[in-house]
Amino acid sequence: MFAESALDRRTIEPAVPVAEPPSSVAAPQPLAGDVGVRDLRRVPIHPDYWYPLAWSKEVKRGKAHGVRFAGDPIVLVRTESGNVFALEDRCAHRQVPLHAGVVDGESIRCCYHGWTYDCSGRCIDVPYLGKERLPNGVRAYPCKEVAGLIFVFPGDPALADSRPLPAFASVADRQYKTRRLGREVKCHYSFMHENLMDMNHQFLHRRQMGMMRARSVGRRRGEGFVEVDYTFTREGGKQPVGEALVFSKDGGENSKDVMTVRTVYPYQTLQIRSGSGTLVMDLWIAYVPLDAAQRTNRTFGTLSIRRPGLPFALDLAWPLLVWFTERIFKEDREIVEMEQAAHDKQGADWNHEVFPVIRDLRDLLRECGGRTVIPIQKV
Amino acid sequence: MFAESALDRRTIEPAVPVAEPPSSVAAPQPLAGDVGVRDLRRVPIHPDYWYPLAWSKEVKRGKAHGVRFAGDPIVLVRTESGNVFALEDRCAHRQVPLHAGVVDGESIRCCYHGWTYDCSGRCIDVPYLGKERLPNGVRAYPCKEVAGLIFVFPGDPALADSRPLPAFASVADRQYKTRRLGREVKCHYSFMHENLMDMNHQFLHRRQMGMMRARSVGRRRGEGFVEVDYTFTREGGKQPVGEALVFSKDGGENSKDVMTVRTVYPYQTLQIRSGSGTLVMDLWIAYVPLDAAQRTNRTFGTLSIRRPGLPFALDLAWPLLVWFTERIFKEDREIVEMEQAAHDKQGADWNHEVFPVIRDLRDLLRECGGRTVIPIQKV
Amino acid sequence: MFAESALDRRTIEPAVPVAEPPSSVAAPQPLAGDVGVRDLRRVPIHPDYWYPLAWSKEVKRGKAHGVRFAGDPIVLVRTESGNVFALEDRCAHRQVPLHAGVVDGESIRCCYHGWTYDCSGRCIDVPYLGKERLPNGVRAYPCKEVAGLIFVFPGDPALADSRPLPAFASVADRQYKTRRLGREVKCHYSFMHENLMDMNHQFLHRRQMGMMRARSVGRRRGEGFVEVDYTFTREGGKQPVGEALVFSKDGGENSKDVMTVRTVYPYQTLQIRSGSGTLVMDLWIAYVPLDAAQRTNRTFGTLSIRRPGLPFALDLAWPLLVWFTERIFKEDREIVEMEQAAHDKQGADWNHEVFPVIRDLRDLLRECGGRTVIPIQKV
Repeated sequence: MFAESALDRRTIEPAVPVAEPPSSVAAPQPLAGDVGVRDLRRVPIHPDYWYPLAWSKEVKRGKAHGVRFAGDPIVLVRTESGNVFALEDRCAHRQVPLHAGVVDGESIRCCYHGWTYDCSGRCIDVPYLGKERLPNGVRAYPCKEVAGLIFVFPGDPALADSRPLPAFASVADRQYKTRRLGREVKCHYSFMHENLMDMNHQFLHRRQMGMMRARSVGRRRGEGFVEVDYTFTREGGKQPVGEALVFSKDGGENSKDVMTVRTVYPYQTLQIRSGSGTLVMDLWIAYVPLDAAQRTNRTFGTLSIRRPGLPFALDLAWPLLVWFTERIFKEDREIVEMEQAAHDKQGADWNHEVFPVIRDLRDLLRECGGRTVIPIQKV
Repeated sequence: MFAESALDRRTIEPAVPVAEPPSSVAAPQPLAGDVGVRDLRRVPIHPDYWYPLAWSKEVKRGKAHGVRFAGDPIVLVRTESGNVFALEDRCAHRQVPLHAGVVDGESIRCCYHGWTYDCSGRCIDVPYLGKERLPNGVRAYPCKEVAGLIFVFPGDPALADSRPLPAFASVADRQYKTRRLGREVKCHYSFMHENLMDMNHQFLHRRQMGMMRARSVGRRRGEGFVEVDYTFTREGGKQPVGEALVFSKDGGENSKDVMTVRTVYPYQTLQIRSGSGTLVMDLWIAYVPLDAAQRTNRTFGTLSIRRPGLPFALDLAWPLLVWFTERIFKEDREIVEMEQAAHDKQGADWNHEVFPVIRDLRDLLRECGGRTVIPIQKV
Repeated sequence: MFAESALDRRTIEPAVPVAEPPSSVAAPQPLAGDVGVRDLRRVPIHPDYWYPLAWSKEVKRGKAHGVRFAGDPIVLVRTESGNVFALEDRCAHRQVPLHAGVVDGESIRCCYHGWTYDCSGRCIDVPYLGKERLPNGVRAYPCKEVAGLIFVFPGDPALADSRPLPAFASVADRQYKTRRLGREVKCHYSFMHENLMDMNHQFLHRRQMGMMRARSVGRRRGEGFVEVDYTFTREGGKQPVGEALVFSKDGGENSKDVMTVRTVYPYQTLQIRSGSGTLVMDLWIAYVPLDAAQRTNRTFGTLSIRRPGLPFALDLAWPLLVWFTERIFKEDREIVEMEQAAHDKQGADWNHEVFPVIRDLRDLLRECGGRTVIPIQKV
């Protein structure tokens, strides 16, 4: 996306070697594309992973905050001691959202008749009912707070401990400055993965970045992941300042920066390393379906940029970088929402993919996704 | 809701004695709740009753006014002589609403091609057609005007005369001052009945009224009605001025005010009597479904307050009472709309009711409601 | 609509003689109306005709413009040489709209990954793919530009050459001044035809035109068309200035202007001729369904008024005529949208037509329409 360089991928990624054709794409496939396989846009995200459902700062001490995962309402409660827990956001009594309620010590009290639940979802008080006759409670979700994000495990709770949380190494490293990105995008999560991984879409950003030519120089696929390496060549326009802040100065064919985009289900990362192997940019991103049809996702991302030698230079330039990335993300949001709108209208996936990396990615998302089918209707 | 007092219910209501448990609620029931019975939220209101469809002042002389009952469009016409009649709001010709038309003497003329109907719905003129060849007309509804409300009988017209209209005794009594309340609320009418009858929901109004503890001290069920008596104890906060205007001064356990909430299908009343048996507050209220799915109702209520000894004191305090009741009703509206939203999302009634009065009320609404099932879809 | 005159239809239209009853309408028919025939509001417009999809000025040189025909997205591209072509508005790759793309010489380039199509829909470039491996392209539509309108043939392209385009004789004639009319109206196209052809709806425009009485004085039906002649008598109010600008001065029963409204499938015309046979007003209009349910149409019309003897008089009066026609069209739009809303609610056509001309018109629209049935749902 940003750098121009020749590739020396062995210094970066000593992974599975892949035979790559001279050009970055394979021969065209029959137009039918994914005939016989299920429609990717109707594959639900798999619930047996940790998903970020809110930024830490959104859940204030002594407050409750309502979120959603694939249509399921979940309340995040930060108790008076500062702990966070996650429950089904629905009082057992009359199903009104608990997030409209009142945090009471380490518990949450429904706003309507005052039914009260602890962090395990147990009902511990009904004001007008004897303690010995308390009704059943509500579902609790495993919940952890990492790197300023509140993660919830919406699937089988017995699997929660065995599933790793993301590491966020660059976020914790003071050599990097991190920007937190988040917005709602009205599309299935799969469009987001495909957008970021297919760097041939630089044409979309021609107004922000000039004419950049991406070149796919390696790809790998393994258990639960797909990744691809790119180098870039400028074919027209000037390098924008927002881009130059971070990456190698325009060096024509001699620059050596390489970008690796990786989907490790269900997350995605984009890393840029300089010719010497230094990680100069590290993006981690997750796309969390909000509604039951999974036609809207909330994006949570951390974008870490390595600080240059000169102290404070990056801080000074930060507003420009924010502006630049916002412009890029706005264009991406608009285009994926157009893709979703087209799918909704067609009632089927007519995608005609010619780029092998994206074909691999689509297979991965299908294989790792939930086993059910999202019921949707043609609009 | 308002008063604190010990109960002496025999002075108030010499009705069916009911064994009441020491606490106001019974032992918890199986979570399944109403298994095997039909979903109350899909029970249509029974059309064979008189329903208020507009305030008298909304239907001006020589004007037509369009309203709805459970999805059926109805036009209320006030003729030049001041009478009101009600017709199907749909011209027989091309089905455009008659309320967009023109009142012509004692008839209504469609705005499009001028077809004209009298109070019985008969077509009495088509300007470009001979009188001897007039087409059929439209349906007429029985219609009466009482206490500033226009009532329509949407069901079998043969039953209209045998069904009583509400009495509105306090509205007519000059010892009372009456406020008219009305608004649209986006929920099934049953949530409205349950909200008003379950005074354990005082927790919802804690910001308006402080912590009030309702105590159910008697309940009765008979043909077409359910009712319950409450006394109240303040557990925290101060008595608000809006409340004190009407009810006994804070008197701790010695006050004797008692509130009776009664659903007499399809209406509801809430009355407060002092220890001496004087009716100090008299609320009559009806919830009229507007749409075919009966997910929105328009509330029509008359709230009558007995004038205190000092002349004009109530008039001076009236704005405060208006403000106070508006705040209370706003909280109630928000919560019942949350209940409806939860039901819509779930596609079923997951209500887990533990309060016997409300269980009785739910049975009553099911038994008295229409025999069909509202077809709804999970959203 | 405008003139008052006795009829001398032989000077105007020497067509099929029709026995007309003394009054302008026939005896009332059974209320059931069109029992046994298909619901006209569910008859799709027939695609094997030329439809205007945009005004020429909307498609600027070097720009693409997205339009719709009955739910099908179509992009109109004006190339750098000024030609216009029409394609399916959906990139073959990921189905995003081509109208968001970039015109490149005589071709259109998708904004996302830069896939490029020529005027025949052939894919002529994928920037990251060898020319020898180009994928299939997109559908192209026959497209012609006439009288400031861009016409597209959405049906079977093999029939395009044999179907005539409208003539627009008055638009090209300098003795006439032409106003272009266009707006979206939220109804099935059939309501538009019926509205214009049934001049008994003058009652609707009573505030603009006073009380005018239309008299049907002749009607004809032939292969693919229905037409009707009217004269008008003023029964109340004064002739408005906007109307007098164009038509005979109020002359009571002696004026001889006659209006002919004609549906020549799928278009409609309204022409007014003076007693001497001069064409004083010539309206051509088409109603193009936009959505798949054909519940919204875009109207394209040309209204040509013959210039009077005094030079510039018409130009000076033009703003008044614009204002007058806008008022009339606004009332028509509101009423046909009410008709559509009633149909949507009822889920069926309850029309009870008593006017023979409109019955003929409805038969014509059913016979000439598409063979499929628009799937709709009761709302």
